[in-house]
Amino acid sequence: IPSRLPDVGTSIFSVMSKMALDNGAINLSQGFPDFSIDEKIIQLVSRYMLEGNNQYAPMPGTPALRTIIAQVVEATYGRKIDAETEITITAGATEGIFSIIAAFISASDEVILFDPSYDSYSPAIRLNGGIPVHINVYPPDFSIDWDAVRAKITPRTRMVMINTPHNPCGSVLHERDLLELEKIVLEHNLLVLSDEVYERLIFDGLTHQSVLRYPALASRSLAVFSFGKTFHATGWKAGYVVAPEYLTKEVRKTHQFIVFSVNTPVQLALAEYMRTPEHYQSLGKFYQQKRDFFLKQIEGSSFEPLPCSGSYFQVVSYKNISKKSDVAMAEDLTKNFKVAAIPVSVFYNDKTDNHLLRFCFAKKEETLAKAGEILRKI
Amino acid sequence: IPSRLPDVGTSIFSVMSKMALDNGAINLSQGFPDFSIDEKIIQLVSRYMLEGNNQYAPMPGTPALRTIIAQVVEATYGRKIDAETEITITAGATEGIFSIIAAFISASDEVILFDPSYDSYSPAIRLNGGIPVHINVYPPDFSIDWDAVRAKITPRTRMVMINTPHNPCGSVLHERDLLELEKIVLEHNLLVLSDEVYERLIFDGLTHQSVLRYPALASRSLAVFSFGKTFHATGWKAGYVVAPEYLTKEVRKTHQFIVFSVNTPVQLALAEYMRTPEHYQSLGKFYQQKRDFFLKQIEGSSFEPLPCSGSYFQVVSYKNISKKSDVAMAEDLTKNFKVAAIPVSVFYNDKTDNHLLRFCFAKKEETLAKAGEILRKI
Ligand SMILES: CSCCC(=O)C(=O)O
Ligand SMILES: CSCCC(=O)C(=O)O
Repeated sequence: IPSRLPDVGTSIFSVMSKMALDNGAINLSQGFPDFSIDEKIIQLVSRYMLEGNNQYAPMPGTPALRTIIAQVVEATYGRKIDAETEITITAGATEGIFSIIAAFISASDEVILFDPSYDSYSPAIRLNGGIPVHINVYPPDFSIDWDAVRAKITPRTRMVMINTPHNPCGSVLHERDLLELEKIVLEHNLLVLSDEVYERLIFDGLTHQSVLRYPALASRSLAVFSFGKTFHATGWKAGYVVAPEYLTKEVRKTHQFIVFSVNTPVQLALAEYMRTPEHYQSLGKFYQQKRDFFLKQIEGSSFEPLPCSGSYFQVVSYKNISKKSDVAMAEDLTKNFKVAAIPVSVFYNDKTDNHLLRFCFAKKEETLAKAGEILRKI
Repeated sequence: IPSRLPDVGTSIFSVMSKMALDNGAINLSQGFPDFSIDEKIIQLVSRYMLEGNNQYAPMPGTPALRTIIAQVVEATYGRKIDAETEITITAGATEGIFSIIAAFISASDEVILFDPSYDSYSPAIRLNGGIPVHINVYPPDFSIDWDAVRAKITPRTRMVMINTPHNPCGSVLHERDLLELEKIVLEHNLLVLSDEVYERLIFDGLTHQSVLRYPALASRSLAVFSFGKTFHATGWKAGYVVAPEYLTKEVRKTHQFIVFSVNTPVQLALAEYMRTPEHYQSLGKFYQQKRDFFLKQIEGSSFEPLPCSGSYFQVVSYKNISKKSDVAMAEDLTKNFKVAAIPVSVFYNDKTDNHLLRFCFAKKEETLAKAGEILRKI
């Protein structure tokens, strides 16, 4: 049986979380919170289940949830979108990304993406017959050279994938990036897949540069969002895609045959919970405090933090203390020092190793303090 | 923007459910129960959420759920399977089917399927570059001519898809079918995707012929199951795939990039709930009663029931009263008589119209009685 993904093993997140568990290590590898979620939203899911909402949701998502999303998008990004035709609820952002690629990428279509890139992007492109065109970006700021992008465009280029705030880097795109991207995609008639799952986790007074803020860009973009990141419930597997009607129509065609619909009581609970802006508006502040707390823990240690403007990941360089590969370093840290992190090289198609580790700070202060104590001693 | 699925519109299930809603019709179209689910399993989901199980489940599913599935499979089909390496929890059976096809079907691979066939099969094959090879089966018993199957095999044939109990037909495969299939796939080195989501909805003393009962067949089969069907919770979107390790390995590669994982509290609740065999063992009897109740309602009407040995669908012929297309008949019934059903022709690639409608009897007796009252008058 020939494999369609011969070079793919178990995802780094599963590998490191398992290694953390097996070694009793503090798990700052896979990105998820270790604190409780708001009981209010749990009570809502319970209530909707008890009230009998346990059968298929409508394929594009429940109307109530799409309606509140349209309101929040308008309030946040100043863009009016139509709940009926421009929003699709997906089984997490991962399914949203896959359904978009399945809808638009066929044999030999080229997709430009920037490495480090999230581990599902490239396999999703390849499974659909597409060709990932990787462009490396580098520390400390992982900024994109848009002329390098122009140089990679061919008649087969169909899509550019961006991700801001960035996983794993913690970097963000700026207005000038979006304007450059807009020019390029208009000129070359390309689509944009914009992974914005950390839209609310943005720090230091920066503004999240959603594609939805730029009308011409938005007219050819599919933006992907995540309830799991915003409401601390990564295990509920709910996200959504915002795109103009002519693109949403195609995404729904693939979505309907990939999962059909998303957990009904979860959708109804989210719709009600989101009516209270306090439930998500202070998220940036909340995670900025966590970032700062973590930075204080590793202050004076041998780990040198890179700038982190968003997401719940802090990248650090260990080049002052070791020449080991980052994969070996992550393993060493997990097994011998009992703190698990993710080696950044796995997100580069060519395995570029800048001696960087990614730590997830979506954790209780207690957890971060314990990890810091260990890291300061290395 | 060229569509990858140009001929695909909104799924018939969404179309008919919406038409039912818009016309105040009794909805016997889309397959889902209209009665309450057991409060016990709702309480379990609530408890697991409150206890803090709201982050990513392991990619292949929670160990507790896979362990109990292995036990139930052994008790039911006499087949020992390994929970660690042979089970994958999926976001409903639909995602299981898609992930299997994505894992094994590449450009120009042929997949044999039998029409009428569930509406996601063919698009899933085509999105992955494969070629659906449709073989029609016909009323009243929709039986498969295995010599016709042999005649369709080419060097590019890679997989045969079966579905028992059958949606939409309500027919089942028998031991002789499975033995023929086994011979064919061994001789031609093919894989089998076996959609068994209605495994427990089987009537009249028949035994569900799972591929898992046949060791040689099972060694090249991927069997797909559904919690939604078995526990009356189609809106929770949870299912699973059972396959030998060498096949499961590949399914997990696609699953991990399509959705990554499935709702955590739902998985934990299912694991605990399934420990009590009474929670699923009488399901065949339960739905047989519903089938019989529905048959009694339409007794003496102009609708002629076809044999129904399993699933929660009753197919009826209306050829005695109308020469209308089944699509027109379903619309007429919904709009003018206020009972919604599914036209069977939509499940034939060539739109073969045998003047059949599919009614879902997974409904309260009260609902079925009201529908019967209307149908008897037509
Ligand atoms: C889907 S598991 C990975 C979670 C995550 O987004 C990350 O750790 O980067
Ligand atoms: C996924 S909606 C369709 C439900 C179903 O299986 C059916 O009605 O056939």
